[in-house]
Amino acid sequence: MSGAELAARTEAGRALVELAARHGAEFLDRAAAHDAAGRYVAANVDALKTTGFLAGTTPTEFGGLGVDSLHDLVVAISRLARGCPSTAIAANMHLGFAWHIQRAWRYGTAEDLAPLLKMLGTGQVVTCHAGTEPGGRSLLEPATQARACPEGYLLNGRKMFATNSEIADLVTVYLTIVDADGKPRLGSAAVPRGTAGMTVLGNWDALGMRGSGSHDVVFTDCLLPADAVRDEGPVGAVSLPLWAGLFAINFPLVGTYLGIAEYARELAVDAARRKRPGSALASQVAEIEVALATARAVLERAADVLDECLARPDAELTQDGVDVALHEFQAAKLVVNRSAAAIVDAAMTVVGGASFRTGHPLGRLYRDVRAGPFMAPYSTLDGLGFLAESGLA
Amino acid sequence: MSGAELAARTEAGRALVELAARHGAEFLDRAAAHDAAGRYVAANVDALKTTGFLAGTTPTEFGGLGVDSLHDLVVAISRLARGCPSTAIAANMHLGFAWHIQRAWRYGTAEDLAPLLKMLGTGQVVTCHAGTEPGGRSLLEPATQARACPEGYLLNGRKMFATNSEIADLVTVYLTIVDADGKPRLGSAAVPRGTAGMTVLGNWDALGMRGSGSHDVVFTDCLLPADAVRDEGPVGAVSLPLWAGLFAINFPLVGTYLGIAEYARELAVDAARRKRPGSALASQVAEIEVALATARAVLERAADVLDECLARPDAELTQDGVDVALHEFQAAKLVVNRSAAAIVDAAMTVVGGASFRTGHPLGRLYRDVRAGPFMAPYSTLDGLGFLAESGLA
Amino acid sequence: MSGAELAARTEAGRALVELAARHGAEFLDRAAAHDAAGRYVAANVDALKTTGFLAGTTPTEFGGLGVDSLHDLVVAISRLARGCPSTAIAANMHLGFAWHIQRAWRYGTAEDLAPLLKMLGTGQVVTCHAGTEPGGRSLLEPATQARACPEGYLLNGRKMFATNSEIADLVTVYLTIVDADGKPRLGSAAVPRGTAGMTVLGNWDALGMRGSGSHDVVFTDCLLPADAVRDEGPVGAVSLPLWAGLFAINFPLVGTYLGIAEYARELAVDAARRKRPGSALASQVAEIEVALATARAVLERAADVLDECLARPDAELTQDGVDVALHEFQAAKLVVNRSAAAIVDAAMTVVGGASFRTGHPLGRLYRDVRAGPFMAPYSTLDGLGFLAESGLA
Amino acid sequence: MSGAELAARTEAGRALVELAARHGAEFLDRAAAHDAAGRYVAANVDALKTTGFLAGTTPTEFGGLGVDSLHDLVVAISRLARGCPSTAIAANMHLGFAWHIQRAWRYGTAEDLAPLLKMLGTGQVVTCHAGTEPGGRSLLEPATQARACPEGYLLNGRKMFATNSEIADLVTVYLTIVDADGKPRLGSAAVPRGTAGMTVLGNWDALGMRGSGSHDVVFTDCLLPADAVRDEGPVGAVSLPLWAGLFAINFPLVGTYLGIAEYARELAVDAARRKRPGSALASQVAEIEVALATARAVLERAADVLDECLARPDAELTQDGVDVALHEFQAAKLVVNRSAAAIVDAAMTVVGGASFRTGHPLGRLYRDVRAGPFMAPYSTLDGLGFLAESGLA
Repeated sequence: MSGAELAARTEAGRALVELAARHGAEFLDRAAAHDAAGRYVAANVDALKTTGFLAGTTPTEFGGLGVDSLHDLVVAISRLARGCPSTAIAANMHLGFAWHIQRAWRYGTAEDLAPLLKMLGTGQVVTCHAGTEPGGRSLLEPATQARACPEGYLLNGRKMFATNSEIADLVTVYLTIVDADGKPRLGSAAVPRGTAGMTVLGNWDALGMRGSGSHDVVFTDCLLPADAVRDEGPVGAVSLPLWAGLFAINFPLVGTYLGIAEYARELAVDAARRKRPGSALASQVAEIEVALATARAVLERAADVLDECLARPDAELTQDGVDVALHEFQAAKLVVNRSAAAIVDAAMTVVGGASFRTGHPLGRLYRDVRAGPFMAPYSTLDGLGFLAESGLA
Repeated sequence: MSGAELAARTEAGRALVELAARHGAEFLDRAAAHDAAGRYVAANVDALKTTGFLAGTTPTEFGGLGVDSLHDLVVAISRLARGCPSTAIAANMHLGFAWHIQRAWRYGTAEDLAPLLKMLGTGQVVTCHAGTEPGGRSLLEPATQARACPEGYLLNGRKMFATNSEIADLVTVYLTIVDADGKPRLGSAAVPRGTAGMTVLGNWDALGMRGSGSHDVVFTDCLLPADAVRDEGPVGAVSLPLWAGLFAINFPLVGTYLGIAEYARELAVDAARRKRPGSALASQVAEIEVALATARAVLERAADVLDECLARPDAELTQDGVDVALHEFQAAKLVVNRSAAAIVDAAMTVVGGASFRTGHPLGRLYRDVRAGPFMAPYSTLDGLGFLAESGLA
Repeated sequence: MSGAELAARTEAGRALVELAARHGAEFLDRAAAHDAAGRYVAANVDALKTTGFLAGTTPTEFGGLGVDSLHDLVVAISRLARGCPSTAIAANMHLGFAWHIQRAWRYGTAEDLAPLLKMLGTGQVVTCHAGTEPGGRSLLEPATQARACPEGYLLNGRKMFATNSEIADLVTVYLTIVDADGKPRLGSAAVPRGTAGMTVLGNWDALGMRGSGSHDVVFTDCLLPADAVRDEGPVGAVSLPLWAGLFAINFPLVGTYLGIAEYARELAVDAARRKRPGSALASQVAEIEVALATARAVLERAADVLDECLARPDAELTQDGVDVALHEFQAAKLVVNRSAAAIVDAAMTVVGGASFRTGHPLGRLYRDVRAGPFMAPYSTLDGLGFLAESGLA
Repeated sequence: MSGAELAARTEAGRALVELAARHGAEFLDRAAAHDAAGRYVAANVDALKTTGFLAGTTPTEFGGLGVDSLHDLVVAISRLARGCPSTAIAANMHLGFAWHIQRAWRYGTAEDLAPLLKMLGTGQVVTCHAGTEPGGRSLLEPATQARACPEGYLLNGRKMFATNSEIADLVTVYLTIVDADGKPRLGSAAVPRGTAGMTVLGNWDALGMRGSGSHDVVFTDCLLPADAVRDEGPVGAVSLPLWAGLFAINFPLVGTYLGIAEYARELAVDAARRKRPGSALASQVAEIEVALATARAVLERAADVLDECLARPDAELTQDGVDVALHEFQAAKLVVNRSAAAIVDAAMTVVGGASFRTGHPLGRLYRDVRAGPFMAPYSTLDGLGFLAESGLA
């Protein structure tokens, strides 16, 4: 590659990125099959368990690799995505959640996280963060409810786009806690696989990211013990520590689209070298390079701003710091999504009609890349709305 | 629709456009199934036979509707495409070819076209123009050869993207005539269905336009009588009358992408009306309207320039007139392709994650619309190269 | 030019366009001087009087050229603008007003317009439509007031961007009529040059269009006879006949930016031919051609829709027809503004650093072209807002 | 500002950036006057002398601030440009040259640089790098010649866009050394103010950057002593240490356009807060935020890549390292130029017609920002050509 690709900034990050690159290369061969069948990338996730990749963001104290830089995590996700975008988002959902737990353990007051971290540190446990609801306001006012009952809480509700749900050992959700007395509260819960009342529908069938197993998960009078539901503050507001978790789960996801762009660029350049030169061909390549440099840069800068924002205990997080970080994150997400889509499109233009036939990887990338704008916390529409408000604040 | 949709300019054109609108509405329901299965739109083509739509561009003398305005033809194709883009390109390939024959009959010296026109006028015959070859230079120097032999000519070669080939009664091709003595000449032939040595591979499997049956067609010592191969002039140049035919076959095709854009716009506006208003939502709608007005305008203007260029006998066609028409055609094609892709993308943004699930029509349109830039005579790369040369000429 | 330039559709229009082309070529030499000095293009306007150009939209019955197609008018304005954009907008403001008067005479009930039409038919009278107010809502609720008094009306208020005001024989304004009894009404008036209480400030000094003399005009107890103020209906709404006038005054203005684009394209192509070829150079040329074809097409289509909408008496105008016409007009305005700006920018890129030095015409065009988005009735912001509403209606 | 503005990474850099911010705020008031008169920003440069700002990149050993990070230098230039872009490019040309000299002193073998560094360390000396020639190939094959003569060398030639030339104590140039025997060599020279045979034309008059005094400089038999001309290697190639100098002189220049964008954004947001809200207004603000985040990010990333490339002695510079750095630099330059132009344009859209009147700062920024694409080493055309080649290498 002519430009400078992103590189990890910490020792632990370098190890994770290197693993990601190896896994990505290995997963590339299977990506077409997973896509064609719309089949969850279970074998890839097993491979990620074997090497300890899934313990990447768990502290070394618990056997993990100890990556705590979101910068390095987003680079690792991008490398994985060069091979298989579906696997990249699957791995991301788990690694982001595990990062969130390590932060809670490191800075928070929650001393009960050691058992969970030990599990995560084995790299054998896979989690699913079921963050989206049909109504689209899952975070501020989850329609999913945990209603207090004598034995604990009864969960009812439905989540969508629950990547990994097919095999996840733990499904984490936000919900509204409804006690007999008192106002509704925002809560979270981690529901173990096999809990009665939790059904994974197996209904993921989409334009792209077809291997990500992003099924719906339905809770019907799903009983949880009282201490399994965590109070996250008042409904309608996102606390600063919660934002930290949201950053960890959703920001590195953006790396997926950089990885897609990088692979598309490689396909384009390979094809261009074999074609007779032409002015339009050269211009497409130049614009691909510009778009790629742009995507890398905005991702790196947002990652740096996030890492700086989060490099302090919960109590020292500031609304301003989080706002600025969210601003840079959303701008970066938009720019990476646009750049990656433009690169895939230009790559198809360079490659020509062959890229339109089923089996050519660009057709898959064209579909996968369109998932980006829908990703949480803000879709393109909500993200632009947020940036306008933030800009005028 | 708020803006002014395109309307036919001739009486015959209005009849064709009205038919197209009815057929389009009818085909909409089946579009998803054809797409999912990658199955040729045979039932739709049968419906187009029944109403005489396929005789649209055949003179009334032969029982057709007598549409000779490419403007009106492109409008009709766009209406059909609102319902089923695959059917639109299938119909187009036939109607464009039939237009070319009526023009040859009207202005040319070829008195032997009456039998063919009678067949076309029944509306029961479907043709396939197999215009593309693997090497990509099929028009200027076809690799497919017709080699003289005592019984006539032996055809050998391979064509791609041969829409309608699955059921076509006639497959038309450009080829290089190789006589024992003399230089190679450019030729054309129409090969009847079932001719020994012509094999339709049934291998169409692509990202979009999955119902168009655009299979490969292989000729292996396919014997044609001497008078079935027509001399089209020296190899390496396209004669003015041949350009007329190319315009008729390839220009109305662009209407397909306008139809896609119009349907995507409808889906977006329907969804937007049900959503809570927002600045980003409004802006997406505004830009959809701008892009749609643009696509319609460039298509209409190019159509007018083409119609004016072609409203004279072959002998009075001028290189300048054809050059200007090609310039406007290629610019319009680029703009419609870009606008339509932008509209589909914005429509997905407006609709949200639901549009990413299999079964939502926008996912199909997102794939179908990407076919446009590859279409003949010039892909995006070649079209931009042509426009630069033309601009500097 | 490689593409097809716009051409008039009527005989009268062809005469006007031909005159415009001759005048434009003549004005090109003086454009730099007018721009440098920020001096009104008085000599050019005198030349336009001499040839009868200014009587272009006055009926032949009154000695004018009788152009009533807005399509042909916009083409004529574009030709003039190839030479001098400031003169083009100056001429437009007059010709649009005169068109409005001929329509009122033709379809309206106002039999008292003959004297005015006779004056306009001489081509010696220049009008100024002072349509903008500092507050920005001049059309719906003019802050300028005509207050009834025993001798007629006293005008008070301030208008901006009043092109031609420096020498105009008549200044036309919209205002709010305030009678002693009754609700405020929307009114219009034409104030003769030299009327006491009307002051032209001579303060036009702007980034571009520096020769257009678009000064502020201030009314201070300016006394008009009672019959000089015309009742235009209730305040806060624009009647359909008023829309016709707004179309005539503001739509052909858009042709100015096409003319700018066409001249910029010529400068770019001339320079490109003298440079050593390069891929980026070719791509800039190709994109200039695409943008130019786009600008021409949207302008032509909007013109056709407007002409069709207006080809009927006031009583037969429909809200739907006017809405659709406004929709196409605003979309076309946006696209022409964007395309023209992009073409000027690309032309500077092609020409190189020389275009940045004072004296090179592209520097002037770069400044002139930026006026477009501010033009009435809707600036870019309001136009996008309108298109979103219209699209969702 | 909602997003995260760029910040210096070193202690020395922070001091320079802070000075730049203070100077920028102070220069803002005078910017309009310099622009209107097209008068060199002499008073600003005097102010920069007074605070030692001009010694910013000179090592502390010689009394300077010791900034050696190009990252921090580009941030400082951007801060200065928020107030006065002409002053920013004037300061940049000097600081970049001084940086180049400190590097040559630090890593090179040239022990004779101490006297020059002492001068630079006073902050009282201003240099002018006259890097461009009419023919446009000044770096690879300068048309300016130094012909050997008994007393040393006679310089003949012409340089353009020589910012600071009006008052510079030293004018530095690249030239072709022509000895009686031997091949032409690439050379450089620093010509002191007042040297006979060097004439500064005082002819700078341009669309923007009107205060930068970027006059032509003409050499006519200008006699220099033999040791004043330095041999820089073979003609037609740029050595790696020379690239380091080119980076230092040309890269921080890009910061000027970020500063323009940041000031334009401020003007837009201030205006938007005073307007009634609207969807199009919000969208313009959102896109301004996205473009600003993009510009900052690409600039920061390119700066980091450059700093890493240059953090080693000349002998350890690698062609690969320089190539990658140039790739990122050129991509960043393109993106910043595009983003800054888009931001200024959107800001005018937000502010409305007021921004079109002479005296509003946005009119000046609109003209200043257009200088960016012409800047060395590669204009937009050459930069895109380079990126295509680099991408395919």
